[in-house]
Amino acid sequence: MGDTATGTDASAPPRATTETDWDRVLNPRTVVVLGASGRADNPMARPLRWLAERGFAGRVVPVNPKYPELAGLPCAASFAEVEGPVDLVLAMVPAAQAVAAVREAGRAGAAAVIVFASGFAEVGPEGATLQEELVAAARESGVRVLGPNCQGIVHTPSRLFASFSAAAERPLTGSSGIAYVGQSGAIGGSVLDLAAERGLDLTTWVSTGNQADVDLTEIGRYLVRRPEISVLAAYAENLRDGTAYERLAATAAEHDTALVVLRAGRSAAGRRAAVSHTGAMVGDDTAFRLVSRRHGVVLVDDVEELLAAATMLRGQPRPSGRGVAAVTTSGGAGILAADRCEALGLHLPELAPETQEKLSRLVPEFGALANPVDVTAQLFNRGDRAFGEVCAIVCADPSVESLLVLVTMVTGREAVALAEDLAAAMQGGTVPCAVAWLAGPDRTAEARALLTAAGIPVFASVAVASRVLAEVVRDPGPDADGPAPAPPGPLPGDGWELLDAIGVPRPEGRSAGTSAEAAAIARELGGPVVLKAEGPAHKSELGAVRVGVPLDEVGDVTAELLRLAPSVLVQRRAPAGLELLVAATSGGDGWPPVVTVGLGGVATEIHRDLATALAPLDRAAARDLLRNLRSWPLLAGHRGADPLDVEAAVEAVVAVSRAATDPAIAELEINPLIVGREGVTAVDVLVRRTTQDREAR
Amino acid sequence: MGDTATGTDASAPPRATTETDWDRVLNPRTVVVLGASGRADNPMARPLRWLAERGFAGRVVPVNPKYPELAGLPCAASFAEVEGPVDLVLAMVPAAQAVAAVREAGRAGAAAVIVFASGFAEVGPEGATLQEELVAAARESGVRVLGPNCQGIVHTPSRLFASFSAAAERPLTGSSGIAYVGQSGAIGGSVLDLAAERGLDLTTWVSTGNQADVDLTEIGRYLVRRPEISVLAAYAENLRDGTAYERLAATAAEHDTALVVLRAGRSAAGRRAAVSHTGAMVGDDTAFRLVSRRHGVVLVDDVEELLAAATMLRGQPRPSGRGVAAVTTSGGAGILAADRCEALGLHLPELAPETQEKLSRLVPEFGALANPVDVTAQLFNRGDRAFGEVCAIVCADPSVESLLVLVTMVTGREAVALAEDLAAAMQGGTVPCAVAWLAGPDRTAEARALLTAAGIPVFASVAVASRVLAEVVRDPGPDADGPAPAPPGPLPGDGWELLDAIGVPRPEGRSAGTSAEAAAIARELGGPVVLKAEGPAHKSELGAVRVGVPLDEVGDVTAELLRLAPSVLVQRRAPAGLELLVAATSGGDGWPPVVTVGLGGVATEIHRDLATALAPLDRAAARDLLRNLRSWPLLAGHRGADPLDVEAAVEAVVAVSRAATDPAIAELEINPLIVGREGVTAVDVLVRRTTQDREAR
Repeated sequence: MGDTATGTDASAPPRATTETDWDRVLNPRTVVVLGASGRADNPMARPLRWLAERGFAGRVVPVNPKYPELAGLPCAASFAEVEGPVDLVLAMVPAAQAVAAVREAGRAGAAAVIVFASGFAEVGPEGATLQEELVAAARESGVRVLGPNCQGIVHTPSRLFASFSAAAERPLTGSSGIAYVGQSGAIGGSVLDLAAERGLDLTTWVSTGNQADVDLTEIGRYLVRRPEISVLAAYAENLRDGTAYERLAATAAEHDTALVVLRAGRSAAGRRAAVSHTGAMVGDDTAFRLVSRRHGVVLVDDVEELLAAATMLRGQPRPSGRGVAAVTTSGGAGILAADRCEALGLHLPELAPETQEKLSRLVPEFGALANPVDVTAQLFNRGDRAFGEVCAIVCADPSVESLLVLVTMVTGREAVALAEDLAAAMQGGTVPCAVAWLAGPDRTAEARALLTAAGIPVFASVAVASRVLAEVVRDPGPDADGPAPAPPGPLPGDGWELLDAIGVPRPEGRSAGTSAEAAAIARELGGPVVLKAEGPAHKSELGAVRVGVPLDEVGDVTAELLRLAPSVLVQRRAPAGLELLVAATSGGDGWPPVVTVGLGGVATEIHRDLATALAPLDRAAARDLLRNLRSWPLLAGHRGADPLDVEAAVEAVVAVSRAATDPAIAELEINPLIVGREGVTAVDVLVRRTTQDREAR
Repeated sequence: MGDTATGTDASAPPRATTETDWDRVLNPRTVVVLGASGRADNPMARPLRWLAERGFAGRVVPVNPKYPELAGLPCAASFAEVEGPVDLVLAMVPAAQAVAAVREAGRAGAAAVIVFASGFAEVGPEGATLQEELVAAARESGVRVLGPNCQGIVHTPSRLFASFSAAAERPLTGSSGIAYVGQSGAIGGSVLDLAAERGLDLTTWVSTGNQADVDLTEIGRYLVRRPEISVLAAYAENLRDGTAYERLAATAAEHDTALVVLRAGRSAAGRRAAVSHTGAMVGDDTAFRLVSRRHGVVLVDDVEELLAAATMLRGQPRPSGRGVAAVTTSGGAGILAADRCEALGLHLPELAPETQEKLSRLVPEFGALANPVDVTAQLFNRGDRAFGEVCAIVCADPSVESLLVLVTMVTGREAVALAEDLAAAMQGGTVPCAVAWLAGPDRTAEARALLTAAGIPVFASVAVASRVLAEVVRDPGPDADGPAPAPPGPLPGDGWELLDAIGVPRPEGRSAGTSAEAAAIARELGGPVVLKAEGPAHKSELGAVRVGVPLDEVGDVTAELLRLAPSVLVQRRAPAGLELLVAATSGGDGWPPVVTVGLGGVATEIHRDLATALAPLDRAAARDLLRNLRSWPLLAGHRGADPLDVEAAVEAVVAVSRAATDPAIAELEINPLIVGREGVTAVDVLVRRTTQDREAR
């Protein structure tokens, strides 16, 4: 790890860049700056100047025929004139010259080229063609390309400032252990700048731009393995390859590196904006969320939260549960925190009597001990250092899984004392802590810096601090390591046939093409029957389903229905019970299939009582999924009603989830699956196949 | 307004302090500082020092027998020695001496005393007694009391710094037009400090503490009428008097002063914290929310949002709807904003073709025009001032009701140019604007100050900016001025009788005390009947309701049910239909009654499909309320099903809402109300009376 590579690995296959190659990219011995600008005020002059002036230890060779030297470094007139091995090339050239630059870099044995220029796929078909040429050149030359249309790399351990982002202008030490990777250089710039302004210089920063070759999951997978990185904050506009994302998430988990992801373009309006921005659509958000949860990825919704979560996790473990203790210098802040935490699904357990007893010796008489613990302003006026001790006692309470410290107008000298005190108390502890400090940063700067240095994050609002605590809780989630059930063999195409194959019961019945045929089937089945026109979706809207048709009316009703469809299904009536929806959707783009259960029937869209999980599921996971429904009590026995046959429902969910792993099945939906007191019955089923793209039922 | 009073009004009744009195309190000609501290480092020395040194124009008389002078002002040895009229007394004395101070203030003709000391109701029964004595002394002396256990008043127009809050130490000019009033001095201190740090010095600041006499609604009602105040930001831990809150909200609306309220203690954990903090419970949150909406109060959940909303509204109108245009310097920020806005119920309409055509002449080629409008970083590199023009064109689009400007790494000189440009473009416009600037405040300070001075708020995150836009949208809401229907006469007590009185149909039926009686009633009604044990709630859990009992089984079933209850109700079976819940709860504490409609029956708690409104409702409002239910399509005709009798349901909701205005009725719940194709039937009803507190059905 961290070893500098030898520069002889240029023959590696393009999509299998080794860790050594990435070491060469981030810790290069020689960087060629192609087309370095001579105009000092041009942002494109920054990378060369920064490489020359900010402690980069490698060799830097600017290439520009117009100048004998730039930034104090002798210029080569052309790439061909650069002597010796080359690791990294910064292509500061216009789009039209990028392909040539890649070929030259390949000839020089470089590991990678950063293409900064825009004018590729993001601008339309012509640019897309140019981008394809760029990738082809990279493949042929055995060199990797970052970008195009990107803002490059900052890697502080090697003092590599290979970016033109104005945010990198700050004197960065890279002390935070936080890395950023993302498509957007502008968002990345904001993250870098805001982090630095809070005293949290990013250690590594990579803008991947159009991701023509290297994408954020690949560079991310390298970064999460680095010992100097404790958190990877990622910004993604598209994640086209589910498998690659899952590998990143799994690698991060394996190396105990926190992964925080801000995925943009999840809303309809956001997707429209994303289309005009990068030409890429966001894939299935459900699979993304479920894969993230499986591997403990923290998902956030905003740059502020991305930074907040990264700050929270850089020096502290994740909370093991939702029990929060609030320690506050003001009653009001404690109440607000309790409100926020509860709204976010956290809870403030009442502290144990022994804890409260210990606290009572430290907290002034008019404070509060139960949780929130209100130490009152008096504690500080008194001048002693009880605050840290209070926090340590609270953290020792068995119900406390994270600590939320609320500070109002404690400023100046007292603020520093509080910070010292808290930092000392939290050192080596296992309960993570977040501070919301509600006073101007200018009056609490020293105290904040002290806490930040101790790995304790300070937030400007109760809402942000509470939200970050809720986001970083380690969800036990389903066990990802359980033995996967054997995948089903290839499944037959017809909807009902498929149900039979996977073992989900359905009402006895057969298709009829004429009224006479229908009447015969009905007599065979006995009793009033159900008649369904076979074909159109949303049957109930068309009056194409008739329930409880007496035997003597079967002929007439069938005749009516045959005007809507070529055949009519004659079925025995389904037993009474609760109507569920059980469905599965294949992933596509490398995303795993997803199972959905919900309250079914005609009111599915109205109640929107749905729960999802990654397929396949075993019985325990299927039962958990059903338990997540609001309607679970209706299954399990509500208000004295007899419980329904939950185990039969579980069996059906397992069967559907396994069927979803058949790559030929794009969609499989049973709605309703009637769950009775004994057994279940699938009343309607829809199957869509990936290969044939046809509906069968 | 603003005229200084004469100090002769001490005989006014205690609870009817006039505007002139409040003028005297905030612009006093003479302030007596009782028990002024001689120790300069004591926070309690601050008010006197600040009154002496920060430009207060009135007379200040410190009272302290131990010093000849304090803060350069000659001391009186006792209150009795103070000569001439007194307007305001700052009681810096311990709790035990506060009652005496109030009496002395009364003798001196003061309008008010600020009691800073703690040790009253917040510390327990003993303190509560002392607080009662304090109020009694105030009433007898004809003087008003602010506090006790408060942090006082800052009123910048008169340079009155009558507080010991460390937050008031900053050099405040009070230029913002924002006032704060709230119980908590600590939260208030944070608001004051954070606002000042952002260049938004509060104009007036009042901490009301225990509110023994003056509460925040009273002082608030004075402040919202002041011409120098454009926004009142209020923090409330309890609002015990619904009528007073509604008067504050109505007064603010009438004077076009924005009212933003942060109500703490809305969650269970928050209420527990509130109890230990101030001894007061939060009342009915639903009525609070509905009253707030009726009068256009902006509700927020956090100090950060309180400040953000106040900042948004101090110089701009409220958005008239949910259509937001985003103008961004980076595609990524635009996508994030679109995601956030959509999640918050805002929408980003696609801009009109004419708008896009105009924009296309200004926005660089690779930008976006539809909304978000991405002007790209190139616009700034180009150096011209098109940004303001772009924003003006966007605001002129008819679908745009607010503007969200997103700026990433534009800093320094370019930042100032952008700010000037935007401020000029927005001047005099009617579309409010919020800016999210994602760069370190240290590198954008001048630009931010410029925008703040122009009344345009700058936020640090996309999430906060989007949230504030969503919060301040002016909801058309129900018409508060419509003619209220005549209140019903006193309603009879029995549940079924009450239904008959208000005209809600119920199944025909009568009570039976014996099996024989039940059988006779059933024969009279005909067909299978419904039998219900009369009394216990949640009947279906006990098997106490039997539906569809054939005539020949009525006797036996009745005998069974009579083991559960003294009488059995024999009813004709209700027709088929959708089960609704229709309920009303009286307000109490001056809060208006609330009507709730929802999906009813046994699954009410499971579906939680409920909508609420203030009672009474007319037909249009009742229909709107039903339309708010997710289940509305089930009423209106879903997927080809025939519509149910919505108008009959509306009639029942109106009737229940009117009944709720009978002050004797605490609770009235019909569940289920079966809505059929023709007509409705109330199948069960529960009535609780305020006076007798008994259940009747």
